[in-house]
Amino acid sequence: MPLTPDAQAEIDAARATPRPTLRAVSEGMEAHLYTAHPVLDHGFVRVIDYMGDDAAIVQAARVSYGAGTRKARDDAGLIRYLMRHWHSTPFEMCEVKFHVKLPVFVARQWIRHRTANVNEYSARYSILDREFYIPAPENLAAQSTVNNQGRGETLSGPEAARVLEILKADAARSYDHYEAMLSQDGQQGLARELARMNLPANIYTQWYWKTDLHNLFHFLRLRADAHAQYEIRVYAELMCRLVADWVPAAYSAFEDYRMGGVSLSAKGVEVLRRRLAGEIVTQETSGMSKGEWREFEEVFG
Amino acid sequence: MPLTPDAQAEIDAARATPRPTLRAVSEGMEAHLYTAHPVLDHGFVRVIDYMGDDAAIVQAARVSYGAGTRKARDDAGLIRYLMRHWHSTPFEMCEVKFHVKLPVFVARQWIRHRTANVNEYSARYSILDREFYIPAPENLAAQSTVNNQGRGETLSGPEAARVLEILKADAARSYDHYEAMLSQDGQQGLARELARMNLPANIYTQWYWKTDLHNLFHFLRLRADAHAQYEIRVYAELMCRLVADWVPAAYSAFEDYRMGGVSLSAKGVEVLRRRLAGEIVTQETSGMSKGEWREFEEVFG
Amino acid sequence: MPLTPDAQAEIDAARATPRPTLRAVSEGMEAHLYTAHPVLDHGFVRVIDYMGDDAAIVQAARVSYGAGTRKARDDAGLIRYLMRHWHSTPFEMCEVKFHVKLPVFVARQWIRHRTANVNEYSARYSILDREFYIPAPENLAAQSTVNNQGRGETLSGPEAARVLEILKADAARSYDHYEAMLSQDGQQGLARELARMNLPANIYTQWYWKTDLHNLFHFLRLRADAHAQYEIRVYAELMCRLVADWVPAAYSAFEDYRMGGVSLSAKGVEVLRRRLAGEIVTQETSGMSKGEWREFEEVFG
Amino acid sequence: MPLTPDAQAEIDAARATPRPTLRAVSEGMEAHLYTAHPVLDHGFVRVIDYMGDDAAIVQAARVSYGAGTRKARDDAGLIRYLMRHWHSTPFEMCEVKFHVKLPVFVARQWIRHRTANVNEYSARYSILDREFYIPAPENLAAQSTVNNQGRGETLSGPEAARVLEILKADAARSYDHYEAMLSQDGQQGLARELARMNLPANIYTQWYWKTDLHNLFHFLRLRADAHAQYEIRVYAELMCRLVADWVPAAYSAFEDYRMGGVSLSAKGVEVLRRRLAGEIVTQETSGMSKGEWREFEEVFG
Repeated sequence: MPLTPDAQAEIDAARATPRPTLRAVSEGMEAHLYTAHPVLDHGFVRVIDYMGDDAAIVQAARVSYGAGTRKARDDAGLIRYLMRHWHSTPFEMCEVKFHVKLPVFVARQWIRHRTANVNEYSARYSILDREFYIPAPENLAAQSTVNNQGRGETLSGPEAARVLEILKADAARSYDHYEAMLSQDGQQGLARELARMNLPANIYTQWYWKTDLHNLFHFLRLRADAHAQYEIRVYAELMCRLVADWVPAAYSAFEDYRMGGVSLSAKGVEVLRRRLAGEIVTQETSGMSKGEWREFEEVFG
Repeated sequence: MPLTPDAQAEIDAARATPRPTLRAVSEGMEAHLYTAHPVLDHGFVRVIDYMGDDAAIVQAARVSYGAGTRKARDDAGLIRYLMRHWHSTPFEMCEVKFHVKLPVFVARQWIRHRTANVNEYSARYSILDREFYIPAPENLAAQSTVNNQGRGETLSGPEAARVLEILKADAARSYDHYEAMLSQDGQQGLARELARMNLPANIYTQWYWKTDLHNLFHFLRLRADAHAQYEIRVYAELMCRLVADWVPAAYSAFEDYRMGGVSLSAKGVEVLRRRLAGEIVTQETSGMSKGEWREFEEVFG
Repeated sequence: MPLTPDAQAEIDAARATPRPTLRAVSEGMEAHLYTAHPVLDHGFVRVIDYMGDDAAIVQAARVSYGAGTRKARDDAGLIRYLMRHWHSTPFEMCEVKFHVKLPVFVARQWIRHRTANVNEYSARYSILDREFYIPAPENLAAQSTVNNQGRGETLSGPEAARVLEILKADAARSYDHYEAMLSQDGQQGLARELARMNLPANIYTQWYWKTDLHNLFHFLRLRADAHAQYEIRVYAELMCRLVADWVPAAYSAFEDYRMGGVSLSAKGVEVLRRRLAGEIVTQETSGMSKGEWREFEEVFG
Repeated sequence: MPLTPDAQAEIDAARATPRPTLRAVSEGMEAHLYTAHPVLDHGFVRVIDYMGDDAAIVQAARVSYGAGTRKARDDAGLIRYLMRHWHSTPFEMCEVKFHVKLPVFVARQWIRHRTANVNEYSARYSILDREFYIPAPENLAAQSTVNNQGRGETLSGPEAARVLEILKADAARSYDHYEAMLSQDGQQGLARELARMNLPANIYTQWYWKTDLHNLFHFLRLRADAHAQYEIRVYAELMCRLVADWVPAAYSAFEDYRMGGVSLSAKGVEVLRRRLAGEIVTQETSGMSKGEWREFEEVFG
């Protein structure tokens, strides 16, 4: 249950009282505002605010390129053109602010995206809640045997059970000790900024995270990718659905050109040209390394 | 006249149709939306969109510092506390997007503030309008005799007249030649990306400029300062008034701690302590250079 | 002649006195240090300093990925892997600082790359030199008839002659008037921060520009591209040669994966798969717009 | 012991072989290169590379302000002027790269400084070492009773002993379980990206961290401040000493204007003026809140 009854009541109140504005409004995003979409066992993503819509992207592009663009293309076509040619600045004209609850080890990956604004719950100032990410059994995976940075098959039942037992017991004990160290009952009580060091990386934290649409797309391309760690990917996949409702034309272009797109090297272009001309090309005659060739074949067979 | 009748009609239409939103709304900023506030002879500033209000700053701070802050301080007090202690991230949670029309030499200063999103009118793609900044006679100032980077007294009438004559004639001639080079009447017509190189730095350009409140305050502190060049200062001063209507509590804290505040060096602190203890301190006994002492005396006499 | 004899003497002195260092040294870049490489008629690029080399990229990657990477791949192979998989942070570990002299209209494009550090010559503080970019006749091109943002054929001789005459005369007159307004001979003399507004965009400015290798590659990919404006492309092309001497393995990977690479959309991937399977695909059956199809056919015929 | 014998041998080899360079060299920084300066119980800071010195700051400033500055001021005076007037761009022309080993909860604070380049050891890819920060008894402090975000008195001996016992036992048990989950001995072995979630925030990580001098000063001002958490402050204090050896003039200006300086509000300036004029000012007549007045009196009595 990600939200307390109090928090839910506050959300319900906020959702009950629309106010008039002259700003750009996205109906699709209004429907999501404040609602906590659950992710993992205790996490969530809530849209707190947004700026702009598909039309705002077009409007910004037309400041740059002048009125002539108006006749030449409809809005969706212009947005596709901008995405295809890496004209990123019009997409930067939209902004979004999320409230996210997430495990610390996910937060540590997420924060590496630097072009964003963040206010995180401070464990120097406040006491963290007793909430830990414990994977569902089907998400307990073995180390990949082919990829140092990935996971392979699901763990067998008995091994999975042992792992879950460890994760639960260690989390519970760490939190008990956190509370014991903080306690001022018959003792001074350790400073919060020190006691937190005992907590494992699957404890939940939360933050407000604000970014522009261009940088959000960059985040989503990396984190909704099949190679991303499952625990951050589920956040990214949910955010993809929110963005699709917010700016449908931009999201559709993003899907075609980024999520579903492929970057070909000069060597890859050359191999395709030779194959289209009827030549049989092998790894040996491709000029590619074995790794490159394997990745190339995954796409083009 | 900064706007064409068509542009004005478009603004009037946008202002006539409020729509419901669940987002934070600032009444003070709604009143400014889309309106072109004139600056200099042909420039303007228009608010295109905004995200957040004073309450959004407080809300973000409380994510960081927890519910305990709720009781301790009212909102304005918390905002003052955040500003005083350089807690900048809650201010980053507000965002604003302006449409600005400005001379190129002002744009060149402005763009040095890198933490912002920009879509500028492209003179590679489109043809610039015949609009140049010609200073009002009272703003034609001589080079400062004490400050290499500043202006001194207003020019005498005859000299001012000569300068205005030059600026007007050169702008007109440059633009005539720009058009002549572009013309495809009986000739091929020079590429727009080349023809623009003949235009002087007082021609007007325009852009969408989007930034967060923290970075906007940094911009305003430098550019609304008395030492900033007059032609950018008038933009900053107008934006100060817009921000004061948008986030009154945050702007008030900004005025007290930043615009009206002073940075003292360790030496300056020491001199004040000695003077408060009754000692007469001179530049020679202060440990400061002549320049530092002069700046110190401007504040404390 | 881009440099004065004094400046050249200073460079010669600096180049005459190597000093010992324990830092990473790139022999290829040492050979370029301080030398002014001419660009356009009065511009130049000089390498002022650099940090890191190919080995520094590898070293940073191995901090992230641990010692296991050491056996698996040689350095050039690891660099290719990093580039192919968009692991940008190891490339950010190299830094370079250039001194560039360039026309103002080029500087205005260049500065849009925000992730860099810049110190530009200040025309508020100092007086600009009488140096203007006047294109060589073969670079005087007509507006493109197919691309709003580009140039087409070279202007005919008589039209080119008229254009050159305009550019030269207007530059000379603007600069004469700049000097006349600044003059304190028998008059007060206009402030430098105001007088500069009369100067056209082909006047030369200069700056120190410092960036990391990842952001430099992004700049080079856009600005050394065939669609970039010629006047900035020649700077980017020169810088490509300098970078190739500085970090040969990284530059080679950049050439293969970025400069010579192609971004395929999901639709483009699908079309290629169908064509490899023997199907004849036309624009109508491709799902692409006419523009996309044209760009696709330029690569794959 | 922060470094293995192998790592130490590698450092010794690198330090034994100076090479000639034409770049700016800082003798003070050369003496520190690669050496691991110990911090906390298992951490360290090593300088891996640097770009520029005091003269490079001056050189960049003179690009901006022209040759006129050369006569007016000596280098140290110009650097003080730049620092006093917040001319930050010349300081951005110096860059430094550190290798830092630090507890994860310190890394989480540190990473909030976004204008830096980072390569962190990846616990998705590699296995973390069994090294945990266990505070020295004199650094085990109680929660502050006056400041929600700080620590107060040192814990009493018996309470400190209980806390140390908890921290050590939980760290050891967590790491034992981390290894047990990873083990492929008789079981599949949990993926590294999952097993890491069991590790507490006092485990050590390491990264390469690269930033420019302006942003480093900003980091040091906040993190070497008396209000910063002890465990990050000791890193910042060490880095202050390294910077003092690298760019002595810039560091001296930083100490006077930033570390030892004070930001006065408009109200604070007014109170000082009244007191200098002989008036007795109290909190009630100052216009300040109780908190502001307390902070003001801490400086001026």
